[in-house]
Amino acid sequence: MKLLKETLDNIRGLNETQCKKAKDFIDNLSKPIGSLGVLEDIVIRLYGIKEKEVKNINKKSIIIMCGDNGIVDEGVSACPQDVTTIVMENLTKGITGVCALSKYYGSDLTIVDLGAKKDLDIDKIINKKIAYGTKNMSLEPAMTRAEVIQAIESGIETVKDLVEDGYDLLGTGEMGIGNTSTSAAILSVLSGKDPETVVGMGSGLTLKQYEHKKYIIKKAIDINKPNKEDVLDVLSKVGGFDIAGLCGTFLGAARYRVPIVIDGFIASCSALCAYRLNPKVKDYIFPSHLSEEIGAKYVMEEMELEPLVNLKMRLGEGSGCPFAFNIIESALYTMHNMASFQDAGIIKDDYIDIREGK
Amino acid sequence: MKLLKETLDNIRGLNETQCKKAKDFIDNLSKPIGSLGVLEDIVIRLYGIKEKEVKNINKKSIIIMCGDNGIVDEGVSACPQDVTTIVMENLTKGITGVCALSKYYGSDLTIVDLGAKKDLDIDKIINKKIAYGTKNMSLEPAMTRAEVIQAIESGIETVKDLVEDGYDLLGTGEMGIGNTSTSAAILSVLSGKDPETVVGMGSGLTLKQYEHKKYIIKKAIDINKPNKEDVLDVLSKVGGFDIAGLCGTFLGAARYRVPIVIDGFIASCSALCAYRLNPKVKDYIFPSHLSEEIGAKYVMEEMELEPLVNLKMRLGEGSGCPFAFNIIESALYTMHNMASFQDAGIIKDDYIDIREGK
Repeated sequence: MKLLKETLDNIRGLNETQCKKAKDFIDNLSKPIGSLGVLEDIVIRLYGIKEKEVKNINKKSIIIMCGDNGIVDEGVSACPQDVTTIVMENLTKGITGVCALSKYYGSDLTIVDLGAKKDLDIDKIINKKIAYGTKNMSLEPAMTRAEVIQAIESGIETVKDLVEDGYDLLGTGEMGIGNTSTSAAILSVLSGKDPETVVGMGSGLTLKQYEHKKYIIKKAIDINKPNKEDVLDVLSKVGGFDIAGLCGTFLGAARYRVPIVIDGFIASCSALCAYRLNPKVKDYIFPSHLSEEIGAKYVMEEMELEPLVNLKMRLGEGSGCPFAFNIIESALYTMHNMASFQDAGIIKDDYIDIREGK
Repeated sequence: MKLLKETLDNIRGLNETQCKKAKDFIDNLSKPIGSLGVLEDIVIRLYGIKEKEVKNINKKSIIIMCGDNGIVDEGVSACPQDVTTIVMENLTKGITGVCALSKYYGSDLTIVDLGAKKDLDIDKIINKKIAYGTKNMSLEPAMTRAEVIQAIESGIETVKDLVEDGYDLLGTGEMGIGNTSTSAAILSVLSGKDPETVVGMGSGLTLKQYEHKKYIIKKAIDINKPNKEDVLDVLSKVGGFDIAGLCGTFLGAARYRVPIVIDGFIASCSALCAYRLNPKVKDYIFPSHLSEEIGAKYVMEEMELEPLVNLKMRLGEGSGCPFAFNIIESALYTMHNMASFQDAGIIKDDYIDIREGK
């Protein structure tokens, strides 16, 4: 609890002086003021996060939190539970979707086992195992409060280690069969929206299985009665190790002042938990894509975030992050490789614009 | 007129056999069926366009059509007209926004002068000049029908030359002060939407200038009465050299079976003209971003296209294209660097999904 409390207490917002410095620099580049839109916002935010001029990104990694979910016993997923550990192993072999995308975009993967049912003795997996899967949340709380705190703190530690190792841009991903169920349950409680609205089809379901999934999630909420004002209570009762761990990575990123990218539905729900614990976390978060999983858009609404890309993906694993990494890096490159008005022979005052309040 | 007619007559749709081959290949990769969304659609379409297996992109270029617009005499733009040629020169020096983005993403630029007011004697600019700017469309037709055809055919030829030179992915951009006015006029006529709805603020205007811009565009349409069923008539009366030239590049891309990316508002309106001339052109078109220029979303609606990225940019020059290039290339890389179900040790039949009609 000490690390979590210390982290929450030490999260500050953006350095406004540096943001202003970045904006002044960008507004002097030879283009209509504001015309590079989100690329400009990204660079301004990076200056504010790092509290200095930022010219490029050195090292990036996607943190993939893994764990099994007891709720799978209820038949909420099309996949057998052992797919969690099969995919974890495949992640280390470099053969899954996020592996290909990370390789293409020059990102590393940081794979953390917080609660897989099986033990995997593989060097590339960081073992921070808390338990062999969560409990079945339709019968009892998925985790104890102590387990949730341990998972969150594991996420904070993971970020701390990466930052010390020189990583200056992070992403979030997960592997855990059943985690669209836990994410939907968390979103339903935190947003007040009915499971009927926020529960999606995960990796694939028949219509009958989909109806059953919604029924089971409703049951999990009814039985556990999580207190929506207490994020740790919600996470422990209807969450998972992966979600709690990712919640910790968002808190850690804000604490250690490093930009962090959200992948899809599960990572978004984790970000929402972190945001509810400390709203300043939002300053450090960059969305990537909008997952096709139906609840994703509602989480974005809760945090008032707009995805950078529309790719209708629903793979998980952190597979949306590389696209955002790339946009962030191209934004830095672009601002630092354009001519100023002076160098371009164009008069800045020609660009009058009511959008800029001039 | 011969080249235009021959081009329109020789545009065929996608090769469905190759599309099916790509889909079967993708559906055997170890991931929930369809879970890579648009990335999958892109690769399927590339197989159908090239009529063969496509593993990567060899060479890409953004075609930037340049020309001046007579309508600038009416004060519809915040910028002085000579910014057209200043930026054209800056494009050759590699110092503008699209230059930085293209360099970052490994794309070339193909800069074509179709109608700049000044002559620019620069090697890197392809001289296909038709006239020194268009006429003032609020008083008379901007171009003759013969000029429009010449501009379109210049676009077709530009694509033909690039394809012969080994380019297999193209983008579209423009430079021409006043071209958000011509684009809005074209969109208004082709969509039936009032100028009040589709006219935006371009590179920047005061509120008074913005009202005046809308008035002038209405006037241009009222005086010329373009026939919305005749795209060449619309282009000649309220278009510009750049838009007609880009319309030709979309037709040429479809004729020579090469994927082509739309940048922002002006390029979108050009794509709409090509699409109206032959709807099969759509098979070859990939949108990039959604421009902040207000009309952009209505053009996307007319063609039922969804942008790949949301960056709230409004710079023009083709600056949105590199993002789409990159997504297209990453899609190819990802599909060709993931394990099949068999190699991954996962049973395909576990992924049942009502979204896939199974």
